[in-house]
Amino acid sequence: MDFFGDIVKPTLVLNPQHARSNIARMAEKAHTQGIRFRPHFKTHQSAAIGEWFRAAGTAFITVSSVDMAVYFASHGWDDITIAFPVNLRQMDVLSALARKIHLGLLVESPESAAALQERLGGPADIWIKIDTGSHRTGIPWDQPGAVQTVITPIKRAPKLTLRGLLTHAGQTYAASSPDEIRRIYLSTLQRLHSLRDTLGGGLEISVGDTPACSIVQDLSGVDEIRPGNFIFYDAEQYLLGSCAWEEIAVAVACPVAALHPEREELVVYGGAIHLSKDFMEVQGRPAYGLVALPEGDHWGNLIAGAYVRSLSQEHGVVHVPAAALKNIRVGDLLFIIPAHSCLTITALGRYRTLSGEIIPTMNVEA
Amino acid sequence: MDFFGDIVKPTLVLNPQHARSNIARMAEKAHTQGIRFRPHFKTHQSAAIGEWFRAAGTAFITVSSVDMAVYFASHGWDDITIAFPVNLRQMDVLSALARKIHLGLLVESPESAAALQERLGGPADIWIKIDTGSHRTGIPWDQPGAVQTVITPIKRAPKLTLRGLLTHAGQTYAASSPDEIRRIYLSTLQRLHSLRDTLGGGLEISVGDTPACSIVQDLSGVDEIRPGNFIFYDAEQYLLGSCAWEEIAVAVACPVAALHPEREELVVYGGAIHLSKDFMEVQGRPAYGLVALPEGDHWGNLIAGAYVRSLSQEHGVVHVPAAALKNIRVGDLLFIIPAHSCLTITALGRYRTLSGEIIPTMNVEA
Repeated sequence: MDFFGDIVKPTLVLNPQHARSNIARMAEKAHTQGIRFRPHFKTHQSAAIGEWFRAAGTAFITVSSVDMAVYFASHGWDDITIAFPVNLRQMDVLSALARKIHLGLLVESPESAAALQERLGGPADIWIKIDTGSHRTGIPWDQPGAVQTVITPIKRAPKLTLRGLLTHAGQTYAASSPDEIRRIYLSTLQRLHSLRDTLGGGLEISVGDTPACSIVQDLSGVDEIRPGNFIFYDAEQYLLGSCAWEEIAVAVACPVAALHPEREELVVYGGAIHLSKDFMEVQGRPAYGLVALPEGDHWGNLIAGAYVRSLSQEHGVVHVPAAALKNIRVGDLLFIIPAHSCLTITALGRYRTLSGEIIPTMNVEA
Repeated sequence: MDFFGDIVKPTLVLNPQHARSNIARMAEKAHTQGIRFRPHFKTHQSAAIGEWFRAAGTAFITVSSVDMAVYFASHGWDDITIAFPVNLRQMDVLSALARKIHLGLLVESPESAAALQERLGGPADIWIKIDTGSHRTGIPWDQPGAVQTVITPIKRAPKLTLRGLLTHAGQTYAASSPDEIRRIYLSTLQRLHSLRDTLGGGLEISVGDTPACSIVQDLSGVDEIRPGNFIFYDAEQYLLGSCAWEEIAVAVACPVAALHPEREELVVYGGAIHLSKDFMEVQGRPAYGLVALPEGDHWGNLIAGAYVRSLSQEHGVVHVPAAALKNIRVGDLLFIIPAHSCLTITALGRYRTLSGEIIPTMNVEA
């Protein structure tokens, strides 16, 4: 079967061998260092792909929403942390989950702790969400007093078990070199250790961004890692140095719709609703993806100098240097490695493997 | 029923009265000036909402993909232009459509014209896609020779009927004032007329961005307008001056998950997978949406100075000035007017009206 020949519209293509090898490598890294591996399933969002983790020995997982926890709980996962500040409007579903599985929740205010003790219909592990510098959410690491006001009611709550301090050092995504990622990781760790020392008493430490988990070799000093994106990586991770080109496991196959050789551009059928509008920087300009051509039954090397320059709803404008552009025709397929694979996967909803097999996600059934 | 009270996660809320009034106003504007109204259905993507247009006298529509054409053709629309350079990989579906409805296609190369004549299984109207300055795609308006090389094979092709010149002046979205939008519109028109004069012979002119169609009063000199976003508008259109706050017809209701008064921010459950990562500029910084509070059974006025500062997969970080922030609690609902409603609607897949009624789209059935 000529799967690539049958592709007529933007299609999320998965290289299962790359993904499985990324899983095995990260699981092994955690295992050999005695660290709990709790991968974030928000990246793949697929029960079928979850089984690849299970086969590699994974028993604990992270998700980003209550719906995602329900989905994976219904597929046999019984130890799940929802890495998002607890949503008080979903207390009914959270209660059902708390009775069914070993549930971990994130709390960052005394009000949320009190609401859980009062209204949660089962037991839960509680992680205090700490802001170690990303400034997205969490209690700032240098405010132990504020952390203590959350810890105190949790310790008194019979339903709640205080587990430890959890952070997402998302600022690694803004780093300009692997060395800077290592420095951010060490500073994150130092901040969490300093906070734990001030608070005293057996708190675990959970960290989890893909750049640090990929680049830093010695992860000692943490109890748990929660990377997610590493299963597939993407163009941003490649440019950060988190992965090699050959480790990237997803791309979007897009039909070429128009050629503009006079400005070294082409237009693909593949836009913001397929790739998402997340971007990284290439040559000081926003870039929504990197580009490759089909090569046999897979996608080939990076086309040097090419990148996705702009996206509207269905159009992608791709810069392709003249030497490569002259071999491309309207109707050809181009493979775009998205800037941020998690969002692209959510947008497209299901995978086709390199051989054309459909793999569904929680968003789109087969 | 307390619909707002029942909302537990990011929910696309539609004000049908605003949408119907936006439809009526634009249809009337075209009608009184004797211009064909061919609204772009890529914004709402809903057969049910399409009926609101039909009730306002609409018979011709624009869509952005072959799938969307198939969807609306199956709901009784029989005169559809696909405003995207013809995708040669979907010739089978295009042929079926060409036999079933009055189909309009966009062509910008002699190769595509030849492929249609050879392989399309029915008749089609052809519009030449012209780039009048947006530099997304199309033949540049100042290259009549290049346009002629596309026109010639179309005129010789028995299946194809040459209709005219079509443009999307998307550069209005980068304008800094309504006056600039008027200037862009006039320049677009002048460029198309100049090209038509050079080419000679009865070519129609089709234009279609929402900013110009909303702001410019006198639309004489065009045969057809194809605006889409005007049915709902959004935060970007509001800031451009295309609409009043009271004309905006969609918002995303998001639960508040965390408060950060020390930095005048809060975190909502509502991220890039709900709102899309499209942004406009507010105070020189990217802004992913504007913000309102619930007020009875609708959303209220703009919270002055508030905007969505950043988005990750599920989190939205919202800047809210202290005076407004002090009245908001974790678990409250916030209404976000998205930067770009078309992408938000695609991401969320279906609407709830202010009274809680579900309206499906082509992406998510009821």
